[in-house]
Amino acid sequence: MSIPKIVILGAGYGGLMTAKGLAKNLNANEAEITLVNQNSYHYITTKLHEPAAGTSHHDHARVSIPSVIDTNRIRFIQDRVTGMKLGEKTVLLENNDPIQYDYLVVGLGSAPETFGIKGLLENAFFIRNINSVRMIREHMEYMFSRYAIEKKEELITIVVGGAGFTGIEYVGELVDRMPELCRDYDIPLEKVRIVNVEAAPTVLPGFDKELVDYAVKYLENKGVEFIVNTPIEECTKDGVILKGGREIKSATVVWTGGVRGNKLVEESGIETMRGRVKVDEYLRAPGHENVFIVGDSSLVFPGESENERPYPPTAQISTQQGQYLGKQLAKVVRGGQFDQPFKYQPKGTVASLGRKEAIGVVGNKKLTGGTAAFMKKIIDLRWLFLLGGVSLVLRKGKL
Amino acid sequence: MSIPKIVILGAGYGGLMTAKGLAKNLNANEAEITLVNQNSYHYITTKLHEPAAGTSHHDHARVSIPSVIDTNRIRFIQDRVTGMKLGEKTVLLENNDPIQYDYLVVGLGSAPETFGIKGLLENAFFIRNINSVRMIREHMEYMFSRYAIEKKEELITIVVGGAGFTGIEYVGELVDRMPELCRDYDIPLEKVRIVNVEAAPTVLPGFDKELVDYAVKYLENKGVEFIVNTPIEECTKDGVILKGGREIKSATVVWTGGVRGNKLVEESGIETMRGRVKVDEYLRAPGHENVFIVGDSSLVFPGESENERPYPPTAQISTQQGQYLGKQLAKVVRGGQFDQPFKYQPKGTVASLGRKEAIGVVGNKKLTGGTAAFMKKIIDLRWLFLLGGVSLVLRKGKL
Repeated sequence: MSIPKIVILGAGYGGLMTAKGLAKNLNANEAEITLVNQNSYHYITTKLHEPAAGTSHHDHARVSIPSVIDTNRIRFIQDRVTGMKLGEKTVLLENNDPIQYDYLVVGLGSAPETFGIKGLLENAFFIRNINSVRMIREHMEYMFSRYAIEKKEELITIVVGGAGFTGIEYVGELVDRMPELCRDYDIPLEKVRIVNVEAAPTVLPGFDKELVDYAVKYLENKGVEFIVNTPIEECTKDGVILKGGREIKSATVVWTGGVRGNKLVEESGIETMRGRVKVDEYLRAPGHENVFIVGDSSLVFPGESENERPYPPTAQISTQQGQYLGKQLAKVVRGGQFDQPFKYQPKGTVASLGRKEAIGVVGNKKLTGGTAAFMKKIIDLRWLFLLGGVSLVLRKGKL
Repeated sequence: MSIPKIVILGAGYGGLMTAKGLAKNLNANEAEITLVNQNSYHYITTKLHEPAAGTSHHDHARVSIPSVIDTNRIRFIQDRVTGMKLGEKTVLLENNDPIQYDYLVVGLGSAPETFGIKGLLENAFFIRNINSVRMIREHMEYMFSRYAIEKKEELITIVVGGAGFTGIEYVGELVDRMPELCRDYDIPLEKVRIVNVEAAPTVLPGFDKELVDYAVKYLENKGVEFIVNTPIEECTKDGVILKGGREIKSATVVWTGGVRGNKLVEESGIETMRGRVKVDEYLRAPGHENVFIVGDSSLVFPGESENERPYPPTAQISTQQGQYLGKQLAKVVRGGQFDQPFKYQPKGTVASLGRKEAIGVVGNKKLTGGTAAFMKKIIDLRWLFLLGGVSLVLRKGKL
């Protein structure tokens, strides 16, 4: 008699938590658990803005997957998923044979949402994964190194598209990095331009106004230029063209303006809205009892109505989805039923503004400055703890 | 009564030694000494291959000029020389008023000699100064960071044109750097190609055969590919095309194949041979009793005959020229005569092959391995000592 096969695609927050939960809640003879991920490591999305600016090494934003899972219980396959054939309960891989599943958990993450902005995919950089942020950092440093010879201002002008969480956190790191970078490349600090462009009427749209003002004031004091209410119309090899025709010349345009679901999900035939799947209360894809979507490719609404805005895709919601499935899917695999629906419980949100500053809301409390920065670090440590316990916190964490 | 004005252009080995010597051998009321240099720092040319490969920070290859000269005795002007009007005893500067001299010492260094290779100036990098080696390092790292995403082999193929001293020393550093670089960018070490192309029939042309064999064997064991007897015909955006038509695709082509004199010297009207000036026995430019040329723009022959090959331009000969002028020019300024001609005394030559290996000849002795590497470090320390005494050795030196 064969035991149920659970296949988890992607070792992001949702996928990893699902895998770890299932391994904990099911015995070895109850299910075969397979985790597939393109890289040998999990990357900590909420920290990618640091290596992107070069304020910390990219190794601080990744964790080896075999080091945080029980490899006796979870079969780990490092490979790229090339397709999902839901009708045949099969997943196609680039370098391995197709794998069969009884239950599929899809946590394949997101892709940049460009909102149709011309030239963005070709000419902009994206804070997306280890490879992409390492490239941003190296590109920026190369441009700075060229400035000493070529003296062109666009080489030391950085345009950040989008002033949401990632955009603001990245700008905060850039501000921290610049004094060191300028010293290293013999560039007067005041020559560097960091321009943050946002289409919405305000920085951090939807966030508490008082905290937004705090962040803007702090960053403007450090020399950041904010241009709000102004969509980018085109990204070229030379920089960006804003709505209205104004051009900002920049050798380094980093787009943080939004994400959409993974293309593979769309291609699988599952119904999507901008590449994301409106999952049911048990995180199942519509029409597929045995297919679950977690993380950035899933769409969760606070209530019943679709007129509300869905929760934004975050590490926090992905983690909770993974924790939920780790418990509930274990029951179903055993032949039981889901005994409660997934309910996202926002614990608060903190955005860092470099190493020593942050803003955030935790519970009903607004936090700024050192307190918020401390809270942000606690949140980072909590994720390390969930991933790899105290030992990982000690190995990778820093306060 | 005005005192003689001595103007020294360039704070390289020759210029700095001249300035320091004059300041030591002349009293303040005997001469006014002005040193002009484009940067606020002197760079240690013999170490530039290290920051070019990223095995040491570029700050280890430069020394602040005011920190190693007596600024009460030597007026230091940080500016770029734009021209020399020898008839009017005037030097033109980019950002300051022209300066007058009674005695002029020209140590403006070299420019890359491309031997007419098409596309070289536009597409290759040069190990030339702090700005250029910092750019090489950043460019290489940026290319490596792109490899994880684009997987194109040319991104991790480095072509070094020229297997003279600089070429071999740079290749030696690259070999040292690669394991760390590959680990950092998740690239299998064996995928990286380092190709050293030389037009002459052998690596290190003119150097002792036994030592050349040692170097080649060591570097080949580390994976370096040598292509000798093969001129580069063209350098393109995609790499190099060798004589015979073979193309090597490479995103990083570094030319170390030779230097010529500074263009400003040619433009001044002084008679030159490939931009270099055949100076007389007192290092004077032909036809100019009060103009001296030191360093890479000067041409010194071992004997009387021009059929011999001139001494190659090195830090060693430049330093000796500076030391010579520091003493002899002081006598002339005082109204005396040169009492001996300049005579270069080669003390030996050591080429490093990374941090722990080297080859060299000192006196009659051939050195290899650790002994040669140690000797190379002693030579580096000696220069620091000449520049800034024990305190600079302690501050910047390392064994």
